[in-house]
Amino acid sequence: MSPSLPQQITAAIASVVGAGPVCLHEPQFRGNEWAYLKECLDSTFVSSVGKFVDRFEADLAAYTGAKHAVAVVNGTAALHISLMLAGVQPGDEVLVPALTFVATANAVRYCGATPHFVDSETKSLGMDAVALRAHLEEATERRGGLCINRTSGRVVRALVPMHTFGHPADVESLLALARDFGLALVEDAAEALGSTYHGRYAGTLGLMGTLSFNGNKTITTGGGGAILTDDPVLAKRAKHLTTTAKLPHRWAFEHDEVGYNYRMPNINAALGCAQLERLPEFLDAKRRLHGAYQAAFESLSGASLLGEPAGCRSNFWLQAILLDESAADQRDAVLAATNDAGLMTRPIWTLMHRLTPFRDCPRAELPVAESLERRVINIPSSTYPA
Amino acid sequence: MSPSLPQQITAAIASVVGAGPVCLHEPQFRGNEWAYLKECLDSTFVSSVGKFVDRFEADLAAYTGAKHAVAVVNGTAALHISLMLAGVQPGDEVLVPALTFVATANAVRYCGATPHFVDSETKSLGMDAVALRAHLEEATERRGGLCINRTSGRVVRALVPMHTFGHPADVESLLALARDFGLALVEDAAEALGSTYHGRYAGTLGLMGTLSFNGNKTITTGGGGAILTDDPVLAKRAKHLTTTAKLPHRWAFEHDEVGYNYRMPNINAALGCAQLERLPEFLDAKRRLHGAYQAAFESLSGASLLGEPAGCRSNFWLQAILLDESAADQRDAVLAATNDAGLMTRPIWTLMHRLTPFRDCPRAELPVAESLERRVINIPSSTYPA
Repeated sequence: MSPSLPQQITAAIASVVGAGPVCLHEPQFRGNEWAYLKECLDSTFVSSVGKFVDRFEADLAAYTGAKHAVAVVNGTAALHISLMLAGVQPGDEVLVPALTFVATANAVRYCGATPHFVDSETKSLGMDAVALRAHLEEATERRGGLCINRTSGRVVRALVPMHTFGHPADVESLLALARDFGLALVEDAAEALGSTYHGRYAGTLGLMGTLSFNGNKTITTGGGGAILTDDPVLAKRAKHLTTTAKLPHRWAFEHDEVGYNYRMPNINAALGCAQLERLPEFLDAKRRLHGAYQAAFESLSGASLLGEPAGCRSNFWLQAILLDESAADQRDAVLAATNDAGLMTRPIWTLMHRLTPFRDCPRAELPVAESLERRVINIPSSTYPA
Repeated sequence: MSPSLPQQITAAIASVVGAGPVCLHEPQFRGNEWAYLKECLDSTFVSSVGKFVDRFEADLAAYTGAKHAVAVVNGTAALHISLMLAGVQPGDEVLVPALTFVATANAVRYCGATPHFVDSETKSLGMDAVALRAHLEEATERRGGLCINRTSGRVVRALVPMHTFGHPADVESLLALARDFGLALVEDAAEALGSTYHGRYAGTLGLMGTLSFNGNKTITTGGGGAILTDDPVLAKRAKHLTTTAKLPHRWAFEHDEVGYNYRMPNINAALGCAQLERLPEFLDAKRRLHGAYQAAFESLSGASLLGEPAGCRSNFWLQAILLDESAADQRDAVLAATNDAGLMTRPIWTLMHRLTPFRDCPRAELPVAESLERRVINIPSSTYPA
């Protein structure tokens, strides 16, 4: 009897990463992490101010080519503030992929706005600009320079493409659409540090972009995130809003708006500085891993490895396989077999419109997202082989 | 010519802490901070899960006597979630001292509610229960079990006493008032870890209590906070809401409400575990420092050192002096003289109702808070002499 698809996939993964237990994504601390943490502790500046925060922001800007980077407490906070600064107001709608991590939709809610879910494309797993344009032409109208949802009557203010697993969404087409419909584009590049789209870094393509440095990301600060922008006014506002909106003064406490305690502590930034130094190495290792998986999955039928979109370089944060439509009913069997073998895998996220808090939100037709939801599986993705 | 009040105060401070530069509050890392951080890094679990988070929560509960502790990203986040769980809804009002750090009022806003500012008492610098009762009797009425602001028509849902500089507010009287008016009491104990009120720890006296471990606090995690409660249902809800409201599952992503990314990273908790071990030592040092300041300020006329309220043990997080009414006009001269001498001092916070974002909020008469605002100065408060 020939091995079943779950058995074949388990074997293919094990042929690359070895026998389990292997987790989905493990960080690696073999550079200056230790030295910088010690330096931070010895300085006693572990908290809301310190040189590592300044350095991490400068290093992020230098690496990505963004003119400004503002380090914050996590990617969700980065999105929240970016949406506010993009002009999202209570009662607005924001276009968000149905296929995303829940933070994208939650951040819209924190602004008092409603996510409006749209479809993805198979190539990048990101927002489908062609389908979105057709949807907006049908579902919205322009009135007084604003894009209005015909059904809800609400202003559609912004769109938030998310670069799934580090594969850049088709930002150029989405930027054209944003221009045509009068929308602000905020990139959710939480998963895409180091990915490029036509040579430019993810997170630097829209009005603002956001990054995450959670423990499972390509580089980690423990918990952390950043806002990227080329606009000095928005950068200054982002710093202000994320640091309790306190006005500078030698001693007085004046806060000129409702601000947030979203700053990244210096000790987390110390870790980030060391991790960022090693990013090029990590990206090489992740690309090598992708090559090894390509070889392992090449001859397997029923599933294929997700590659990078044309014109892009993915950071290959999370490797993913796509089951054929005919094999979609075996997804849970694949997840069970691989996890039982100690090889951690997981499905892509449950689509946002299925979650209780977002069940009643407006949405486009989602045929591709619904298909991907049944077929995408993430496989172990750490920076091995060393 | 005899020395001026600013000169005398500068000399009194210097006689205790030495010549400057001396900052207001510097953390101390001479215990297991180093060892735990290294252990955390070596484990690779630096982020959203890890044994230090569990241990820090258990240690906090054991220390304070709270049945449950939930570690979060900072004290502001702890307040936000506690207010939500105390039932604060959009459109409600929440009683908050006008004399507090801006986070107390901001957290109310994050719930879509309006802070309603009330007066403080001179002894503790905390919410004045007597004045508040008189205010509520005049300004509110009970309707259907709810406390309604007669002017605004809004439900007054909760009150948030804050333990200023670690001096416990008169929680017993405030709890009686909360019962009488049908309000939930959430303690803002951000500054009061280790302080006790009639033998019980600050943060464990109301429905929920919140702590902060910012870099300037008695113990620090870089950035961090915690929610304390005896209620297992609230504790479970707090953990759920602060960890994106994800339902437990081997691999699936189901989130059953709009959640928050408020968890404390494991690396910050590692620091917290080491710091908490040293808390008794820190409290001793701070009490010794208070004694030294008492001696230095005893014979000085025009200003007095703030002591602990009757029946309480303060953690003496920040030492403070109170200028006599007749010397209030010299406050800025004192601030300038001390800071110029390298001895960091600062005034108490600008009252909340003076800040642009809260200018139009309802408020009681605030004679004591207004007087304290002009007269309180914090003086260097680190855990020296060693």
